[in-house]
Amino acid sequence: MEKLSSALLEEAVDQIARMPGIGKKSALRIVLHLLKQPKEDVNRLGNSIIDMREKIGYCRVCHNISDTEICPICDNPRRDASTLCVVENIQDVMSVENTQQYNGLYHVLGGIISPMDGIGPADLNIDSLIERVESGEVIEVILALSTTIEGDTTSFYIYRKLEHTGVQVTSLARGMAVGDSLQYADEVTLGRSIINRIPFEK
Amino acid sequence: MEKLSSALLEEAVDQIARMPGIGKKSALRIVLHLLKQPKEDVNRLGNSIIDMREKIGYCRVCHNISDTEICPICDNPRRDASTLCVVENIQDVMSVENTQQYNGLYHVLGGIISPMDGIGPADLNIDSLIERVESGEVIEVILALSTTIEGDTTSFYIYRKLEHTGVQVTSLARGMAVGDSLQYADEVTLGRSIINRIPFEK
Repeated sequence: MEKLSSALLEEAVDQIARMPGIGKKSALRIVLHLLKQPKEDVNRLGNSIIDMREKIGYCRVCHNISDTEICPICDNPRRDASTLCVVENIQDVMSVENTQQYNGLYHVLGGIISPMDGIGPADLNIDSLIERVESGEVIEVILALSTTIEGDTTSFYIYRKLEHTGVQVTSLARGMAVGDSLQYADEVTLGRSIINRIPFEK
Repeated sequence: MEKLSSALLEEAVDQIARMPGIGKKSALRIVLHLLKQPKEDVNRLGNSIIDMREKIGYCRVCHNISDTEICPICDNPRRDASTLCVVENIQDVMSVENTQQYNGLYHVLGGIISPMDGIGPADLNIDSLIERVESGEVIEVILALSTTIEGDTTSFYIYRKLEHTGVQVTSLARGMAVGDSLQYADEVTLGRSIINRIPFEK
């Protein structure tokens, strides 16, 4: 990487290059682009980054990201408060919301049980999930975690913790992805799709 | 793109997605990454962007980017002030510096003559180039512009403007790129390489 003739430029490039997926070359391209933009626009960019980190909060109920104490989803009376969808992180909330197939509430664990990374149940928002379920309104808990060993471990841990409440615990259907070709499906997924086959939809 | 549960998050994503080469998905990934970083680090990133745009300046002599009135290159007594390398923009200064083959000074035009984009000679730093050459210290002007129609037009324009000073005007060698295969070289480049062939270097 070439030495730059401006320390200000160099600092901006270094900082931007620390963002995930952006190398030094892209960072330089971004900085040179920003130099040509109006000062107000660049100010707005810089301040939006600072504000976002300074002021953003998490919903007191579901731990999703929120500007208010209770997030817009938990606060929406038209959503079904009897169903909780348990997810690993806020991206997963966005993914499920994006399907437009779910109208219940969420519970964001903030991670997944992973002994390798030193993450145990106490590091996740599991106690508050149990409390929400014990409070009585919840009828069903959907465990929407990754289909990995860590995800399955976490699901099983939560399932055991919820057993005494009598709440219905479900997990996401596993099977062929829409658009998948049988030829390329892995055998475990294909095997499960056969076991869990469903009535043909005409 | 999914609707986000935080206006602060949404604003940051929108702003970051305006950077060149960054889409909404990458911007969201960047923002979620920044959320996990210490506040000081994110503050430093935001402020480096604002400061860079607010405080950066241009060298009074060569128009290269600079934190000081005269850039470190023009200000360096160990550089050869009798040679000027004329380039289109500050990236090109970096590219030439990066070769470590040039020890003269620069002159940044700030663009290239392009009637299609409404850029004429008056929009570029050409008058100040003529003044620098007329002031007497310069022996050679290297026209290091792109080998495009616009680049050639600009080079020719500058050449005519400098004719009366008697300064030596040169341009970059054109020929086969190092590592090029003859089979894939375009015929114009290959043709010029034959015409401008050089003594074999053992």
